[in-house]
Amino acid sequence: MPSFRLTIAYDGTDFVGWQRQASGVSIQGVLEEALSILDGREVAVIGAGRTDAGVHARGQVASLTLVREIDAASVVRAVNARLPQTVRVIDAAEVPAAFHARFDARAKTYHYRIWNGEVMDPFLRGYAWHIPAPSLDVSAMNEAAALLRGRHDFSAFQAAENDAHSPERTVFTSVLTSEPHSTQAGHLLTYAISGDGFLRHMVRSIVGTLVDVGRGRQPSSWVGEVLASRDRSRAGRTAPAEGLCLMSVDYDYNENSLGKNPHVA
Amino acid sequence: MPSFRLTIAYDGTDFVGWQRQASGVSIQGVLEEALSILDGREVAVIGAGRTDAGVHARGQVASLTLVREIDAASVVRAVNARLPQTVRVIDAAEVPAAFHARFDARAKTYHYRIWNGEVMDPFLRGYAWHIPAPSLDVSAMNEAAALLRGRHDFSAFQAAENDAHSPERTVFTSVLTSEPHSTQAGHLLTYAISGDGFLRHMVRSIVGTLVDVGRGRQPSSWVGEVLASRDRSRAGRTAPAEGLCLMSVDYDYNENSLGKNPHVA
Repeated sequence: MPSFRLTIAYDGTDFVGWQRQASGVSIQGVLEEALSILDGREVAVIGAGRTDAGVHARGQVASLTLVREIDAASVVRAVNARLPQTVRVIDAAEVPAAFHARFDARAKTYHYRIWNGEVMDPFLRGYAWHIPAPSLDVSAMNEAAALLRGRHDFSAFQAAENDAHSPERTVFTSVLTSEPHSTQAGHLLTYAISGDGFLRHMVRSIVGTLVDVGRGRQPSSWVGEVLASRDRSRAGRTAPAEGLCLMSVDYDYNENSLGKNPHVA
Repeated sequence: MPSFRLTIAYDGTDFVGWQRQASGVSIQGVLEEALSILDGREVAVIGAGRTDAGVHARGQVASLTLVREIDAASVVRAVNARLPQTVRVIDAAEVPAAFHARFDARAKTYHYRIWNGEVMDPFLRGYAWHIPAPSLDVSAMNEAAALLRGRHDFSAFQAAENDAHSPERTVFTSVLTSEPHSTQAGHLLTYAISGDGFLRHMVRSIVGTLVDVGRGRQPSSWVGEVLASRDRSRAGRTAPAEGLCLMSVDYDYNENSLGKNPHVA
């Protein structure tokens, strides 16, 4: 019974999100279907992060166990042959049976993209939040973003509906970059955040809050006050799903540490 | 009666191409429709290049004349409000009435993208030609690409159905770059070609031929022989439309030169 860690990239546009739902097509659903055909029995897949509807991934990670004796490269080929073209297994590795994609994750990195230009880039439609005007103040946004680094209670950036036991998380990286577009007037902003775990809607709530700073509606120090308040009603709006992408999940495990990190959501 | 030069970006995936067809939705068609509503009469639009079905553009150029007195910025806003989101007017400028987007073009630049990796990047689906294996020999392809620079009879790289008066064109730039992907195993190759004009399917036929060199099926010098033969049957296959993008059209005109360059297709 070999166990595998799959790395998965997907265009989340046409999916209801990672997780199986009562109706609609989920990433987990199409993966489990493809793997079940391969294994000749029902296969359950555990994902590192439950991305919402419309959220993308370049480095989602999932764990699963098969009955069939098969090597990792063959799993990649067989599963990709049965998946829709918007979902690709980009890597697979055999792992100890105890490996758990969610509990063993030590860090996740998300990117959120903002297109800040009057006219939308049609190739970013579905992949970036369009903010036509004003020109966002990237350095003020970066000052604010830096205040989120470290271990904090992130209740202020948590969706109303959530099932997390503790709202404390550690953010390792929180930085915004901006590059001018090569063929259109405007800038593409990328907010990169990595942490040991994220509350529901946390990245999108943070981005909505940073954009209030970028628009000049609030000073950068306000983000520190919002964080300290632990009050969701004080933060900015939840940024749209389509700008968000799960870039990578980091693991650093040995046989003894597996399956023992349940505080990471 | 103001005349305008519009710069247009579009995702060509769902269109029958630039030019109006008996059936199907064309870029020219949706632009003319939006402009006709704006002007209250039928407006005809001339495009710099007739991109085929599935071909994209970041810098297509079109010329047109309106009856209504309106400034360029208002044209951008009004037309974008009526276009499908896959087509955007990214710039507009008022020009002399004699300006002709096709006849006055002095150079066009196309990019063709190839994804050379075992597993497709799902975000490049529809925007790059997927060549899983082998790893293409980029330096041999670049040697071959360099042989196309200068003024030549490009009959060997011309579609069977074509209406060009002369098959001679001047290629200014013909170069391939390769960059490793940041999240997947593989390389993204971009072939950049600029010239004073292009025959039907010329860029795609060149790319198909360069790929035969990249695969090691032919030496780079073979591309010079194919060019000299002026025989379409000797060149490689026509690369798929979705990898191609019209990046820019260059103009260098004064009042006396306008509308007088009919040799440029």
